[in-house]
Amino acid sequence: MKRPCVHCWSSDGELQRKMAAHAVSVLVTGANRGLGLEMVKQMVEASHPMRKLFACCRDPDGPRAEALQTLAKKHPNVIAVVRLDATDLCSIKQCAQQVGSVVGNGGLNLLINNAGMLAKGTLQETSTEDMQNTFNTNVMGPMNIIKEFLPHLRAAAKASGTPGMSSSKAAVVSISSFLASLEIVKQSYDSFPAISYRISKAGLNMLTVCAAEELKKDEILFSLLHPGWVRTDMGGDEGDIDAPESVQGMLSVMASLTEKQNGAFLDYKGKSLPW
Amino acid sequence: MKRPCVHCWSSDGELQRKMAAHAVSVLVTGANRGLGLEMVKQMVEASHPMRKLFACCRDPDGPRAEALQTLAKKHPNVIAVVRLDATDLCSIKQCAQQVGSVVGNGGLNLLINNAGMLAKGTLQETSTEDMQNTFNTNVMGPMNIIKEFLPHLRAAAKASGTPGMSSSKAAVVSISSFLASLEIVKQSYDSFPAISYRISKAGLNMLTVCAAEELKKDEILFSLLHPGWVRTDMGGDEGDIDAPESVQGMLSVMASLTEKQNGAFLDYKGKSLPW
Repeated sequence: MKRPCVHCWSSDGELQRKMAAHAVSVLVTGANRGLGLEMVKQMVEASHPMRKLFACCRDPDGPRAEALQTLAKKHPNVIAVVRLDATDLCSIKQCAQQVGSVVGNGGLNLLINNAGMLAKGTLQETSTEDMQNTFNTNVMGPMNIIKEFLPHLRAAAKASGTPGMSSSKAAVVSISSFLASLEIVKQSYDSFPAISYRISKAGLNMLTVCAAEELKKDEILFSLLHPGWVRTDMGGDEGDIDAPESVQGMLSVMASLTEKQNGAFLDYKGKSLPW
Repeated sequence: MKRPCVHCWSSDGELQRKMAAHAVSVLVTGANRGLGLEMVKQMVEASHPMRKLFACCRDPDGPRAEALQTLAKKHPNVIAVVRLDATDLCSIKQCAQQVGSVVGNGGLNLLINNAGMLAKGTLQETSTEDMQNTFNTNVMGPMNIIKEFLPHLRAAAKASGTPGMSSSKAAVVSISSFLASLEIVKQSYDSFPAISYRISKAGLNMLTVCAAEELKKDEILFSLLHPGWVRTDMGGDEGDIDAPESVQGMLSVMASLTEKQNGAFLDYKGKSLPW
């Protein structure tokens, strides 16, 4: 089955037509497995072509990137597998340079900060090392990635020639979690403490809301998505949904984003989550 | 003028009577200047005696602790100046040991996480180093302090013999900021970006809400206080209020805390702040 294009899922017909006319470039971090791999899969199999899809992971030549490499070989003109380690500023800079040399003045339209790590455990069980690693991967990573890719996002906003904000113009979507919500800790802490993860994702939320404010003058959209509780390596076997359902929902939400959702925190169905 | 006791400021007369009968032990971090020094001053000059007041700072013998040492010399039976560097786990462990040897089975009733740092700057101006330092001081510091002092807080809860929660039984109050509020970034970012500070304080808020959930069974209360925008070294000259007004308000709020405020985020007037 040919999947609908990421930019044609919106129920807004006008948006669909606009999107179809505009081949975009997208970058996904953590693209070798779980939600990231599923995003690449669904985007590349969509009915409307994508100019370029940068599928980033820490070790493109390692055994954990085999499925991604197989997919990339099927779509050599669209998918480029690029090394990017969110905890290594040098690799982020190199990746930004590689992407820049491909996209040129057209810029990068959509950056999806999907790479992340989860350390479980309560306050009393969590080590300094867990805290540092989780913060580095889930907050410092996206922050450095946003900073290094900013010239390409600005280029895309400039090249689009259309007013307003959208994910096919210039946007950063960061994968957060309902566990980042301070308001729902009381209902969720006993069954899933993961304090280092919660702290890091609350930090990612703050980073995103600040970036949304700081860069709105450049017409770069920033949003946060909760993928649902998904049955992946990270989410475990007990999740509510599978990766394809989560990703189909998230891509649909991404396609519908406008300036009204700049700085928003939405789930994969588009429902707003409390801070 | 003799100041009223920290535990007698509440408008609740019953609480005042309960508090007056109960000499408590309190620890304040970052006690050598600004809000921390003012807290020690107001608490030691209150009309009801405090069993012990541990005034902690990074360098008790350095020039920046002179005002605190002068105050401590006036109240040698109450104030103990103790070395504690929030970014140094070893110093936290040593401090916890020293405090434990003084308070014994009576435990530590109130721990005030006041030490913190502020790095200003937007996303684009903020370095990895700023982010790491701010996270270490404002999140890792309080986390390690809570973990290391937990036995003394538990001892205090056990020794109190009263049901429920209060700051004179066993509590951790962490000094946060309205800048930690995700909901008000839109109104405040342009005039005061401080992205690393906002991210760290959002993290501190999450840490506190999680700790409140995890340790409620031990009847240890956790709350967050926004001191107002105060004219101190950190707040700058343009603040709305001076340190005495902020501290008077915060001590009054602390005295009024019950289990209803476990995990709450309040300003120095007791008003609830949005996440």
